[in-house]
Formats: sequence, C-alpha cells, structure tokens
Amino acid sequence: MGKKRILSGIRPTGRLHLGNYVGALQNWVKLQEEYQCFYMVADWHALTSDYENTSDIKSNIDAMYLDWLAAGLDPDQSVLFIQSKVKQHAELFLLLSMFAPLPWLERCPTYKEALQQITDKDLRTYGFLGYPILQAADILIYKADAVPVGEDQLPHLELTREIARKVNFLYEKVFVEPKEILSTVPKLLGTDGRKMSKSYENCIYLSDNEKTVNEKTREMVTDPARVKRTDKGHPEVCSVFDYQKVFTPDRIQEIADGCRQATLGCVDCKKTLAKSLNALLDPMRKRREEILAKPDYIQDVIREGNKRAAIEAEKTMVEARRILKMVE
Amino acid sequence: MGKKRILSGIRPTGRLHLGNYVGALQNWVKLQEEYQCFYMVADWHALTSDYENTSDIKSNIDAMYLDWLAAGLDPDQSVLFIQSKVKQHAELFLLLSMFAPLPWLERCPTYKEALQQITDKDLRTYGFLGYPILQAADILIYKADAVPVGEDQLPHLELTREIARKVNFLYEKVFVEPKEILSTVPKLLGTDGRKMSKSYENCIYLSDNEKTVNEKTREMVTDPARVKRTDKGHPEVCSVFDYQKVFTPDRIQEIADGCRQATLGCVDCKKTLAKSLNALLDPMRKRREEILAKPDYIQDVIREGNKRAAIEAEKTMVEARRILKMVE
Repeated sequence: MGKKRILSGIRPTGRLHLGNYVGALQNWVKLQEEYQCFYMVADWHALTSDYENTSDIKSNIDAMYLDWLAAGLDPDQSVLFIQSKVKQHAELFLLLSMFAPLPWLERCPTYKEALQQITDKDLRTYGFLGYPILQAADILIYKADAVPVGEDQLPHLELTREIARKVNFLYEKVFVEPKEILSTVPKLLGTDGRKMSKSYENCIYLSDNEKTVNEKTREMVTDPARVKRTDKGHPEVCSVFDYQKVFTPDRIQEIADGCRQATLGCVDCKKTLAKSLNALLDPMRKRREEILAKPDYIQDVIREGNKRAAIEAEKTMVEARRILKMVE
Repeated sequence: MGKKRILSGIRPTGRLHLGNYVGALQNWVKLQEEYQCFYMVADWHALTSDYENTSDIKSNIDAMYLDWLAAGLDPDQSVLFIQSKVKQHAELFLLLSMFAPLPWLERCPTYKEALQQITDKDLRTYGFLGYPILQAADILIYKADAVPVGEDQLPHLELTREIARKVNFLYEKVFVEPKEILSTVPKLLGTDGRKMSKSYENCIYLSDNEKTVNEKTREMVTDPARVKRTDKGHPEVCSVFDYQKVFTPDRIQEIADGCRQATLGCVDCKKTLAKSLNALLDPMRKRREEILAKPDYIQDVIREGNKRAAIEAEKTMVEARRILKMVE
C-alpha cells in the first residue's frame, strides 16, 4: 500500500506572505510526511476572476516555486506542478461539465457571496460559475484521497464528491471521493490590522530579509488605547499579539501578562516578535540562497513536476475515456 | 493566398440518412472546391445532451466516416477529424469560458427552446449551457473564415464572434471572426411524413441498397385524400412530392401536373423517385465498396485527419497562450 494522496493548489499570486504560510504552506510541508502530495499552481483558476489581466502570472509562478522550496516542499517527495501545463485538467473539466447540474453551482455559498461582495470585477461569466467543476477535475484527476481545506471550501469539496458519485454510478467506479482535511488556522491580518493584502502593502513576505522584517514589525499597529509606555495594554485588540500567538506560542502567557500589567512595552514586544519571525525565516533564507545558486534548479523542478503530474493525470483520463466510451 | 477556411461538424449519430445528406453533407462536398475545409465528428458535443449514454459513439464514428468518404468528402483536400482527439479544443473551451458572460448563453434562443421542449433529457447541466462556447472553440481554433449554418444556428455564430472580439480587444488580435454561409435547405421529412428520425424508423440511409430504397419508397405516405388511382392528387400535402422536389427537380412540373390531373399514379410516381434516389446513391455505393476493400483505409483517414487538425489547432493555441501570458 502506497501513501494516500493529497491535492492542493494556490493561485499564482507571486511571492508568499506570512498569511499564505500559516494558512496553507506550513500545513503542506507537514502533510508531505504522511501523504503523497500533489501541489499545484492554479493558473487557470486565476483567470476565473481576473481574465482581463494576466500579465503577472509567469513571474509570479517562479517566485512562488522559490518560496515553496525554501519553505520545505520537497520536489523528490511531492509533485509540484503548474495546472495549465497538464492539459488533461481541461479535458476532464469539459467531460465533468456534462454531469454537473447548474443548480449545484448556482447555490454554492462562495459563488453567491462573491457575486454580492465583489463589485470591482466581472464575475458573471461562465468560467467563474464553473470554478468548482475545474476544482473537481483538479482533484479527481489525481484520485486524491483527501484535500486540505478551510471551512468555506467544504461545499466545493462536497460538489466534487457528488460529481464523482454521479459518474461512478452512471458508468463505472473510476473516481475516488476525496475526504476533507479541515484546517482550523487563525486568519492572520496585515501589519496595519486590515485584511492582509499585497495591495494594502501590509504583508511580511517569506522572502523579506531580517532588516525588513524588523522594520515592518516595528511599524505594526498595536492597541490604540496604550499611548504611553506606562499605560496598561489590551492584547485582545493588538495585531502584534495576534502574531505572537502564532509565532511565539511558547511565551504567549508571559507576553499577555506583561502587556496587561505594563511591564512589557510595545517596542520590546515587537522585538520579540521580530526575533520569532526571523527564527522561522532564517532556515528559509538559507535554502533560498542555496536554490538561487543553482541557476536551472527551479525550472528543472517545474519541468519534472509537470511531467510527473501529467503521467498520473493521463492514467486517470485513459480510464475516464474508456468508461465514457470515447474513441481511443 | 491560400483558400479560405471552413469549419463544420456533425454529432456521431451513426450512418447518415437522406436528411443529413441534403441538410449538410451535400453542401460539405461542394464547399471543398472553394474552401479549405475542416469537418469534425462532434463527439464531445454529443455528451452535452446525452451524457448518460455514450455506448454508440465509437461504432457510429466509423459508420459516419464511411458515409462521408462515399459521398465525396476528399481526405486529401479536407481535414476530417474527431473533436475529442484534438485536446486543444478542451483547453480553448476552458480559456474562452472565462470571457463568456452567462447572459450571452442564457439568452440563446436554441437554449431556451431546448429547455422548454425537450423534457425527456436532463439539460439543466453546466455542459449543456456551455455548448455554444465549445462550438466557439471549435471554430476559432482553426481560424475559420466561415461556417455553413442553418438559420437557427446564427445566434451561436454571433456569440462566437462576440467572444473572439472580446479576447482580441482585451489582449491582441488572434482570433478570426467567422462569417456565416447560410444554407436554405428544405427540411426533409421521414418516409411516414413525421420528422425524420432513426427512432421512428422512417429514414432512407445513404448506405441502403437499391432493393431497400425501392421498398422504403414504395411504402411512403402520400396524399391521404387520393384513395383511388383515378382520384386527383394534391402534391402540396404529399411526402413523395416533397422528395421529388429535392431529388427529381428537373421533372417536377410534369410530376405535379400528372398528380393533380390523375394521369400519374402514386405507384409510378414512387418508382420515379426510387430511380432518382438510386441514381444519387449508386456512385456512393461504388465508392463504399472500394473503401471497404481497403481494410485499414478508414482508420488511416481518421488518424491522418486528427493529426492535421491537431497541428493547426496547436498553432492557434500557441498564440492564444502567448497573448493570455500563460506559461510556455
């Protein structure tokens, strides 16, 4: 018995920040021990909501692979690939689209929410509605046993299972119904207390050097009621404290007490956080340098990952075409 | 300057009947002189409305190629290929889906009509709604200058042009806006006067032999008011006369007059029709025998056609990926 399989993906947003790390990458690295992992740059997915501007996709992908490798994704263990380089995803998307009732898609909570809340993008397209089918194809084509998801993605995974069940029932059992690995990660806000977002310039990146991390940490927003060093603080409303919970968990009680009793000042608190962050990022920095010293390494990893993914995807497609009685 | 290009397709319904010939194939044969033609078995399209039963697709395709070749499609001139063997169609379908507003699809007259009228099939699927986008991909991927269509397909072709315009406008002019070649073919009914349909067993097939054609013609429904040979007939309500208009056009006035004046009886009239039909089908029968005498010929034609189509499709995809800035 081989390891069970996982599929997960991320859009090509470029270099990754702490939010990406805590929300996904950290977990991805861990999952490699127990699972055969397929990690994908979801570049076709990037088009579902941003079809008018694709200019950054290419350079973003290289930056992301560098972060992946620096953070500990192991290309010998895991298959690190680019979705659009495995054309079988498009073929399976097309085939599965025949089996997906429109109401399944129209009632997806994420879909309804996006239509309501995102007003600066044109989301009333066929591609955006079909996003969960493309996701189903991504997952089913590797016969993934499990998918790490946040709670908001559960309806999509349920839809993947329903499509798999429908094809398996009407034809022959080919597709695996994937289980969820529910991650309950605290959402990390930006350094200014708003949603972490590149466009807000409130992100600490995995590729930031020590000096930059120190500076960004120093400028973080804290409890607005604590004006003077001697004022008592309220950790529960402090961005820095939210970060400490994630990055300095061992000393969290001491930090909370110090803040509340004004024995720990914000400057020192931030220094502690910066130290924790740099301790996390230092090994990544080292690996990053090693990787960049080998000029062809990233492109080799990409090429090899795409190849391995395509082999596995094609295996499933041979079966899918056979049960659907398409010509060979 | 090379010839202008045409794309047209037909679902893999199996051996073709006179309705298919008059409605499409006859025209396809003629168009070969003036155009570089891409003729496709639309097997993925067959799934949009029949996803639950695909069992006949394979054998239907071979039967169709035989009819195509017998009827005069020339594999040296035209590219005769199977849609699902040119995976680039699926990739372009996926990419174009990002650019297609849902209302464009929802307001297609053919879509609204099908939902209303076809009640024995499950058409409320994502794939069926996206049918015109797949069609747009089929056409745009060969940069077809023109598409032979019936009037009911005009809205689909307009949608194809709109998608082409949108991508060309947002990125770079890659896609050709195809014109229509409007065919105004009279719709041929079945031998029993109902809609011509395999399930009604009222079709005369291109592969029927002389004896079968004679029998089927003899049993055709005529003017119900003409009971006796001496009764005067009404050609305008006679199925046989409808066929004569198409297959014995040179003698149509003489036939109409003979029927109205009861100088021509139904038996003789049908014999005339059978003669016309056999005159049409005889050269096809001869070619059919020649083709079947070469055991590998059809498979060679299919393979060669798929290869030539894939080369042309890939050329367009290289451009499409480049303008959309996808990784290479």
